[in-house]
Amino acid sequence: MLKYEKIVQQMVEYIEVGHFQAGDKLPNVETLKEKYNVSKSTIIKALEKLEKYGMIYQARGSGIYVRNKQREGYLNLFSTGGFSDEMVGLEVTNKVLNINEIKAPESVRQILKLDSNAQVYQLERLIYVDGNILCYEHSYFNKDVVLFLNESIAEESIFKYLEQHLKVKIGFSDIYFTVDKLDDKDAELLKLSKGNPCLKYEQVFYTTTGIPFDCSHLTYHYQNSHFYIPSQK
Amino acid sequence: MLKYEKIVQQMVEYIEVGHFQAGDKLPNVETLKEKYNVSKSTIIKALEKLEKYGMIYQARGSGIYVRNKQREGYLNLFSTGGFSDEMVGLEVTNKVLNINEIKAPESVRQILKLDSNAQVYQLERLIYVDGNILCYEHSYFNKDVVLFLNESIAEESIFKYLEQHLKVKIGFSDIYFTVDKLDDKDAELLKLSKGNPCLKYEQVFYTTTGIPFDCSHLTYHYQNSHFYIPSQK
Repeated sequence: MLKYEKIVQQMVEYIEVGHFQAGDKLPNVETLKEKYNVSKSTIIKALEKLEKYGMIYQARGSGIYVRNKQREGYLNLFSTGGFSDEMVGLEVTNKVLNINEIKAPESVRQILKLDSNAQVYQLERLIYVDGNILCYEHSYFNKDVVLFLNESIAEESIFKYLEQHLKVKIGFSDIYFTVDKLDDKDAELLKLSKGNPCLKYEQVFYTTTGIPFDCSHLTYHYQNSHFYIPSQK
Repeated sequence: MLKYEKIVQQMVEYIEVGHFQAGDKLPNVETLKEKYNVSKSTIIKALEKLEKYGMIYQARGSGIYVRNKQREGYLNLFSTGGFSDEMVGLEVTNKVLNINEIKAPESVRQILKLDSNAQVYQLERLIYVDGNILCYEHSYFNKDVVLFLNESIAEESIFKYLEQHLKVKIGFSDIYFTVDKLDDKDAELLKLSKGNPCLKYEQVFYTTTGIPFDCSHLTYHYQNSHFYIPSQK
């Protein structure tokens, strides 16, 4: 665990044990720096993370404020850390349906910016939260970045594996989504009926230097998925 | 227009006229500072905005990169500036159905943290994009912050009015959403059928000092709404 991640944990605890309520002002950066005995840049990085999680809000020239607690069971769309990272306190599991090395389809080649003969990993999974189906995921991975992938890796957190073992620096992602009616295949996978509502979700992940390496299509179970975005002006 | 907003405009132009493609590195802060002849803090603020819009990505210790262009017609959920701000290039209009001063319902009082006898503005609108129904909006405004509101203000951008006339400092917002089936009332308003899919969206806006002032419930037309989130690790 990196130093700033420890500070994040300690500050989450500090806020949660009730010292602070929504709207309360936190000590300033200088005071926090001394309290935790770390550098200013570590505090700034920790505060950025807490802001992303929606725990605090930094008002320019005014101070650092505690925000409302996120509602339980809501998926925070504001981080690219993968499911397990976002669903704190819930048990996230998955079932690999299919994993293959294939020639990249044209649409995927365009998104991942690949040559016409490029191979990709194709993965299909079902994701569960506390035993309930959250979504069906269909992903393609750029083999130039994701050098190796197999079923046992895909059953765990792919992103942890990418960061820790392949040293991939995950940078940012584009999320596109829309609401639609379920088709036959997705309905069967999610154990719902054709025509039921669903959230169709496409996410493209990039490294810190802008290389697209993961193009995922997700279909969310409308009754089991609730989303949260802490937004800032 | 503030100085950094002008820089944002100029940089958008600079990127768009084709000098830079997705994945290209931009000059560093020092160079940009000299190029635009402004302070470092103005450049940093402009870069923050461009990052929020999903136009660039700042990799710590590595540089500033241009991102892919957002797909046309997608609503960027990453800013709290209201619809007109988010749908650049599209014509956003609305129709006020109803505007009243009422005693705040219990659920609204809790979210806006109001006393038991507090009055709120209640507003119902239909929002259109290029003449197509985007969503039905049902909002409540805290009168301690939104001192005055009427139909002609609600027909324009409420947020511009709040910032420019009432000097409200809009800080952050919590967005919660889920997918559902349309009920009778919403189906009629959106000119769809009962049971059709929809996105149910709740957004609570806060001032920079954490005062909740707007609690909005939106029901999106599933065929006319497409969403985009530029996300960062």
